[in-house]
Amino acid sequence: MTVSAFDHPWLGALLGDAEGAAVFSADRELKAMLAVEAALAAAEAEIGLIPATAGAAIEAACARFSPDRAALAAATARDGVVVPELVRQLRAAVASPHGEQVHFGATSQDIVDTALVTRVKELVPVYATRLTAVQNALGALRAQQGDTTIQAVTRMQPARPMKAATRIAAWQAPVARADETLRAQAERSLVLQLGGPTGDRSSFGGKGDELAANLAARLSLADPGAAWHAERSRLVEFGDWAARLTGGLGKMGADIALMALTGAVRLKAGGGSSSMPHKNNPVAAETLVALGRFAATQVAGLHQAMVHHTERSGAAWTLEWMVLPPLLVASLAALRHAESVAADIEFVPMEETHG
Amino acid sequence: MTVSAFDHPWLGALLGDAEGAAVFSADRELKAMLAVEAALAAAEAEIGLIPATAGAAIEAACARFSPDRAALAAATARDGVVVPELVRQLRAAVASPHGEQVHFGATSQDIVDTALVTRVKELVPVYATRLTAVQNALGALRAQQGDTTIQAVTRMQPARPMKAATRIAAWQAPVARADETLRAQAERSLVLQLGGPTGDRSSFGGKGDELAANLAARLSLADPGAAWHAERSRLVEFGDWAARLTGGLGKMGADIALMALTGAVRLKAGGGSSSMPHKNNPVAAETLVALGRFAATQVAGLHQAMVHHTERSGAAWTLEWMVLPPLLVASLAALRHAESVAADIEFVPMEETHG
Amino acid sequence: MTVSAFDHPWLGALLGDAEGAAVFSADRELKAMLAVEAALAAAEAEIGLIPATAGAAIEAACARFSPDRAALAAATARDGVVVPELVRQLRAAVASPHGEQVHFGATSQDIVDTALVTRVKELVPVYATRLTAVQNALGALRAQQGDTTIQAVTRMQPARPMKAATRIAAWQAPVARADETLRAQAERSLVLQLGGPTGDRSSFGGKGDELAANLAARLSLADPGAAWHAERSRLVEFGDWAARLTGGLGKMGADIALMALTGAVRLKAGGGSSSMPHKNNPVAAETLVALGRFAATQVAGLHQAMVHHTERSGAAWTLEWMVLPPLLVASLAALRHAESVAADIEFVPMEETHG
Amino acid sequence: MTVSAFDHPWLGALLGDAEGAAVFSADRELKAMLAVEAALAAAEAEIGLIPATAGAAIEAACARFSPDRAALAAATARDGVVVPELVRQLRAAVASPHGEQVHFGATSQDIVDTALVTRVKELVPVYATRLTAVQNALGALRAQQGDTTIQAVTRMQPARPMKAATRIAAWQAPVARADETLRAQAERSLVLQLGGPTGDRSSFGGKGDELAANLAARLSLADPGAAWHAERSRLVEFGDWAARLTGGLGKMGADIALMALTGAVRLKAGGGSSSMPHKNNPVAAETLVALGRFAATQVAGLHQAMVHHTERSGAAWTLEWMVLPPLLVASLAALRHAESVAADIEFVPMEETHG
Repeated sequence: MTVSAFDHPWLGALLGDAEGAAVFSADRELKAMLAVEAALAAAEAEIGLIPATAGAAIEAACARFSPDRAALAAATARDGVVVPELVRQLRAAVASPHGEQVHFGATSQDIVDTALVTRVKELVPVYATRLTAVQNALGALRAQQGDTTIQAVTRMQPARPMKAATRIAAWQAPVARADETLRAQAERSLVLQLGGPTGDRSSFGGKGDELAANLAARLSLADPGAAWHAERSRLVEFGDWAARLTGGLGKMGADIALMALTGAVRLKAGGGSSSMPHKNNPVAAETLVALGRFAATQVAGLHQAMVHHTERSGAAWTLEWMVLPPLLVASLAALRHAESVAADIEFVPMEETHG
Repeated sequence: MTVSAFDHPWLGALLGDAEGAAVFSADRELKAMLAVEAALAAAEAEIGLIPATAGAAIEAACARFSPDRAALAAATARDGVVVPELVRQLRAAVASPHGEQVHFGATSQDIVDTALVTRVKELVPVYATRLTAVQNALGALRAQQGDTTIQAVTRMQPARPMKAATRIAAWQAPVARADETLRAQAERSLVLQLGGPTGDRSSFGGKGDELAANLAARLSLADPGAAWHAERSRLVEFGDWAARLTGGLGKMGADIALMALTGAVRLKAGGGSSSMPHKNNPVAAETLVALGRFAATQVAGLHQAMVHHTERSGAAWTLEWMVLPPLLVASLAALRHAESVAADIEFVPMEETHG
Repeated sequence: MTVSAFDHPWLGALLGDAEGAAVFSADRELKAMLAVEAALAAAEAEIGLIPATAGAAIEAACARFSPDRAALAAATARDGVVVPELVRQLRAAVASPHGEQVHFGATSQDIVDTALVTRVKELVPVYATRLTAVQNALGALRAQQGDTTIQAVTRMQPARPMKAATRIAAWQAPVARADETLRAQAERSLVLQLGGPTGDRSSFGGKGDELAANLAARLSLADPGAAWHAERSRLVEFGDWAARLTGGLGKMGADIALMALTGAVRLKAGGGSSSMPHKNNPVAAETLVALGRFAATQVAGLHQAMVHHTERSGAAWTLEWMVLPPLLVASLAALRHAESVAADIEFVPMEETHG
Repeated sequence: MTVSAFDHPWLGALLGDAEGAAVFSADRELKAMLAVEAALAAAEAEIGLIPATAGAAIEAACARFSPDRAALAAATARDGVVVPELVRQLRAAVASPHGEQVHFGATSQDIVDTALVTRVKELVPVYATRLTAVQNALGALRAQQGDTTIQAVTRMQPARPMKAATRIAAWQAPVARADETLRAQAERSLVLQLGGPTGDRSSFGGKGDELAANLAARLSLADPGAAWHAERSRLVEFGDWAARLTGGLGKMGADIALMALTGAVRLKAGGGSSSMPHKNNPVAAETLVALGRFAATQVAGLHQAMVHHTERSGAAWTLEWMVLPPLLVASLAALRHAESVAADIEFVPMEETHG
């Protein structure tokens, strides 16, 4: 089923992203959730919340466990979240006497949010690599063609001649800013979620903070010192970062598409048409605009999901699930297109153009 | 790959919809595009734009054609749309001397938009059936429990006693309105797209309107008399309809979730918790709220995509692809949950509650 | 204070609209609310809910009443709605023995919503006049210049020559559709709100429906037969209509701005620049794009406000107040710019252009 | 004219903000633009771009200049921006021989953007003061009532008893985070805009960077080293910050409104009703929700405006004008309500409630 363009066999090749999609795949999600359950059990065993034998048994079970996915789907349709059924199956797999120690003191959101965070964190080096690649491509473009004199355009009118370097600089700026802030943003946003049923860590026998520190270390995450079950500004900061990056790349796409129309750039590898073989469409550039506007749309949903309530709003949390992965994948697709288009354009000197 | 919750193996069971997903599947999309190409060829043959033998050969080829999907994906990543490669493959399949008659005079957008419209049209009876089902469920609820005295709530304060029927009536109204307008809306929105490369039907040898009428009849669509390549208000009207329906059901969800908290309703079949077995969560109601807010988010993207330009903006068109299917599937999922929750709630008489 | 561009002394001249702003002015709002209170009293007197003398006294008082606006502001900051304080002042003005009959059985939302509806209804002939004017301007443009051969543009590439009439037709379509549907939409959307505190009309001594019919007739509104306090799809339909119109005009703006850049149109009266006197900026066209995207943004807020709850959500209702008037005024401003730009452009025959 | 609730005589008392509105008033805007023109002239005189006498004359004129506002409005309706007419009037006021030196080398956007930035910067201490006030109020609330045992609520169901401190902590977190990041965010976002007509500073006789440094120092702004005419991610970062703050406060509002319904809090000073005198509505809490959802709506418009193009898109820039001031004022209003509501609530111990 491919309701979403990001999951679609051929639209996904245009709009999706293989590395992004892998991170948000059901397989990786299951693996991440089981890794959290395993680390939780190991941490709980180490600090004495559950027996050492239970910890070992649960870790071993998580490593080999393959859930009944049809049952997960049926249960999610009823429970609104996969964890209760996943835990039920995992407890059965661990079996007596240690089954009941699975998930000790934790709540669904601890598992889902932490598993999400560990997966988004896997995207950080992907972002870093692509941001570098786009910056390299734009740097090379500027070095090679920045001195070309082009027509500046303001308010859809020819303004004055200027160097191509000035326009390229406006493409570099949001990418450079995103790169500068990526690691700090990831550190602020991508942290352990551990709170127990009500978010106060009281379900961990007085050892909640000790457990959080231990678990965080095992998962290579920071412990923010409190749950963020219902206070989502950390995660929204990351979404805002991705949306700004995508919007900035959308500006680059809009420029290149406009220049393709006026003849101010030549594209070596544009797209083909079913009816007009002479055309060389600025497809990557237009796609950047589409992705920028898509990200701008989804960011509103992410902010709406901040208006959470009490210790957990199923409605707000579920809304976040629907908008965050497509937003992040759109930003990754935009980086991919930006790199290719930056290597593909050739500025036409102003004196060779007509407008 | 399941970036989107709507395509996800278990989140899709909660948020997605099997009938909606089927309509937006790649298989159905291919089938619909080939049906449009086949009908186009048949119509063109009938009115003498292409030879009758070509028409027959193309129709036959479309019926049995199975494209190379990897090549479709690779080409879509380059061309921004699948049709050029699909037509190339189809021409090869039809082979000389008729291959070149495939897609005669048409443009990618004729195929993609018309194939979309025929598929959305398949959803009309699905909507109709579910709107009836929700109305029946709400009608039964009102008949059975409408006389129960409940506490009216305004601005998050108990107001005065009233009949449950009054609250139920506010759930019925947007569903009834959506049902009343569905067919007229579908007729206005879901019409043939045929324009050729520039939308003026000039590529059809002076027989564009005749062709459009013939093709429309074959596809059981109306011919609006002109292409709507770049003027998307028809389609946006349908999206607005779906978003209003989903928002209206979101209000019902918000009510039931609130009542579940205050004890004003009992749920027979709520969702379970991984940490608190005593809970009976109003999962379907919360999901209705999430879907309503999701639809409200996507509707903005659909309206942004109206700000199209010239005879085709790749950027605007692509944005529409990213937001419309999830919006429609969200509305279908909302109808599903609305029906189940309407059958699931039991109003608690005010005198038995505390607040 | 002019936080909003629509209320700003000079930005308002660009983005606002005098007739729209008048309808949403505080003066007109007060007048409309007092008209509703007066008509309510007259209707209640006529059907015997309050004494005839009370009805007459209240009608007379409403006609001459000028409230203490500072007190209205202070009370709104506390009560979240102006009506409680307005009614308090009005009761004092009517004085004993009839003061207490003011607002009999009604609730704040009856007054605010009905007063809003009567004012939006005043915009219907404004819309009608302007839609006609834009259609006339576009009709004249097409008659005079439709035969000019221009370069069709698809995906930001020159496609093929075509007649200007084809492009103009895409500007006419959403305007014509808006005009065709305006009256039916207004009738569906702009109806009496009367429900009393909980929306069930039970506060009107068993005569709620009789009162509604009487009041509706006095205000020249239809009685929908039930309150729509918390079920906002009627009003949202009107907002959707306005947003689609504005988006459609945004497409026209995008076309003209693009053509101004490529030299495909000449503008007789563009805007000036502070630094480049040679420029003739397509300001009206760009403004249409900005208004189209603004409307697309606000429509999401309107749909979020549909996710109301119980008999009145202060949060949802208040959100509507923030987004609906700017959305409608943006649509009126767009019609104004569309008319002027349609009269201002001159298509340049393709052979005289360069691209 | 008060199209916007933020500018409305009584709705503004609820939703607007006096300090925010002052900063966005036309008076303050004119003053800020004239201050930029004066500082520009002084800087240009100091580095020898214009004669010293011209600099002095312009500074003196700016200090006493009062423009013809009707002419500003008429010109803005034509030019899309106020600066060309403002400069024309200012040149006339300065008069020969120095009039022509006014605005030397600059473009409208240098003035408008820099004048915006200086005004938003005036809001930074306002934000700081209010963030401190809200934190103090929440800190006091937690100190005084944090030990009260309340019912935790997850997914709209009673979960387990917990301390009020846990819920309050979720209100404190986004406020504390906003406070921690305010100054760094302001430094990143609120910087000089100076580029000249095409943004490359080439209009300043080879002294563009020297001028920028001098001007930045005079205006107490940082010089980012390049224009950001068409690359808006700096400003959008600030809008995102404000939207996250408003969304975080919306969560607090949602909590308090829910607790007011279930009786888990008492409000000392809620709002009154026109029909039900017994009610004590959680108006401030509901307003926080409405403002949070409004900010979430506008943030999408701000991100759409990032998809700028070339050296200046009138469309994108104008869209920003429509969404940024209301977004910031909404965040200020939310802080105001958050402070008052934090001082107003009294948690009811769980054993005294019913639910």
